[in-house]
Amino acid sequence: MDKIIIEARVNELATRRGNPHVPFLPREIIADATACHDEGAAIVHFHGRTADGAPDHDPAFYLETNAGIRARSDILIHPTLGYVANDADAKGRFAAVEEMMKSADTAPDFAPMDCGSVNVDWWNTQEGRYDTTELIYKNSTGTLMYFAERIRHYGLAPYLVSWNVSFTRQIEQFLKMGVLAEPAYVCFCMTDEIIFAGHPGSEAGLDAHTAFLPKEFRTVWTAVNYKGDLFQLTEKIIRQGGHVSIGLGDYAYTADGRNLRNAEVIAKVVAQARASGREPATVAETRQILNMPKIRLAA
Amino acid sequence: MDKIIIEARVNELATRRGNPHVPFLPREIIADATACHDEGAAIVHFHGRTADGAPDHDPAFYLETNAGIRARSDILIHPTLGYVANDADAKGRFAAVEEMMKSADTAPDFAPMDCGSVNVDWWNTQEGRYDTTELIYKNSTGTLMYFAERIRHYGLAPYLVSWNVSFTRQIEQFLKMGVLAEPAYVCFCMTDEIIFAGHPGSEAGLDAHTAFLPKEFRTVWTAVNYKGDLFQLTEKIIRQGGHVSIGLGDYAYTADGRNLRNAEVIAKVVAQARASGREPATVAETRQILNMPKIRLAA
Repeated sequence: MDKIIIEARVNELATRRGNPHVPFLPREIIADATACHDEGAAIVHFHGRTADGAPDHDPAFYLETNAGIRARSDILIHPTLGYVANDADAKGRFAAVEEMMKSADTAPDFAPMDCGSVNVDWWNTQEGRYDTTELIYKNSTGTLMYFAERIRHYGLAPYLVSWNVSFTRQIEQFLKMGVLAEPAYVCFCMTDEIIFAGHPGSEAGLDAHTAFLPKEFRTVWTAVNYKGDLFQLTEKIIRQGGHVSIGLGDYAYTADGRNLRNAEVIAKVVAQARASGREPATVAETRQILNMPKIRLAA
Repeated sequence: MDKIIIEARVNELATRRGNPHVPFLPREIIADATACHDEGAAIVHFHGRTADGAPDHDPAFYLETNAGIRARSDILIHPTLGYVANDADAKGRFAAVEEMMKSADTAPDFAPMDCGSVNVDWWNTQEGRYDTTELIYKNSTGTLMYFAERIRHYGLAPYLVSWNVSFTRQIEQFLKMGVLAEPAYVCFCMTDEIIFAGHPGSEAGLDAHTAFLPKEFRTVWTAVNYKGDLFQLTEKIIRQGGHVSIGLGDYAYTADGRNLRNAEVIAKVVAQARASGREPATVAETRQILNMPKIRLAA
């Protein structure tokens, strides 16, 4: 079976209450990216964070972090556009990437497109109510077309996130329009425990995603469980030819009562994949599987 | 098997280009509601429209239409809150219902809650592109909780629309919170041809909806195909114990090359259901199946 692309999702907006090893600052993210690469990850995804864990959209964060990651390994870089923490317009949300494209040292390899809109309020398990009530993750068709145009302009690869079937269908329409090129790299988002915006992180939840992969186009899919334990599904994903996106950003992974580091989470996925006959894809192999274009820096 | 609740969706925002029998004005909607009731429909859903078909949110439209429907039959009334055509805040979107609650002659029986947010842009099949690019159907958690509170206040029944799995999961959280009562009446929205916001109107699309009905709560489900031919699925829906919501608002139904009227669409569903041993639920039976509360008029 095909090699497996493993992406380390090192921090997202996760706190250190669940797992103290969540990296916040550039040097912490750089260290985790390097360690995850050593274990077999081909992609690293991260969010800019301040020392106390708040979201940090300052482009300087990404310039420093990207350059540090680049200096230590060839792992593919996939920054965020800020999720709901960045409520700017399309141009504003993409502004940090524009800055990153000014130098080969800081240019990323992917930029994300969450291909639709969805309510993403946080659920308070203890109190049985929502902690937030107005968080709509808004990605209009026009905004997505703007992102796609800038991504193509710079020779980046679009990282297409689907939170539900509606997102996957929008990806299909974009493929029909030529807004997206083949193969489409689709990340099926599942969510659990404190957010119910994605599909459940169950076999049924994954099946209800993969059933709607556009049939007339070549696609490559990966899966994530935001706030749930993706290891409930990794064997199924590996068996079905999917790829795996995982890390402490999503879930406070432990083993034998011990908090795991990001690199240990990656090592666990690699061991599972190898046991099923799938070797981790190197960066070069990932580029080939996804037919990634060549970066064009800003003039 | 249980009786089947049939809802006539008489007009939505459909034009008369596809089928000239789409009712716009109060007297046209009243006539269709009565004729659909005669054929076996227990619920009528409609949108206020002007003589030339534009959306009409004037509460006077609903007062006149509801009173006219009430005077002619006991069919249950399910008005719209305006969909994306009404971009007011939560209170503004519910304002027409508040007006309707001032008299027993004009009070509806249901008010809709589309339980989430989703991109709903229109696809241009001929040109292979979107005609709109900024239509996000925004229903925040806070807005939905406001609707639920007003619906409970007036003793109306919430008509819970799910466009995708994320919506269904939000309904489940609302059931956990007591924001919604059992049984939850869930309408699974599928979309086709010129809108891809819902699940596909295929067996897989329906299955990916019903798989996520909250298992710990009593639910009753119906299905709609907005802009697609629901008759591709009615036999499956009937067999699986679902209910049917259908009409010219969704699709320009024809038979033998002839444009059908709403009442003829309903008659066709009734014939299919009876052939499978399911009688159409009367209004009284529908009230019982859905455990509908008693209306409380505005003071």
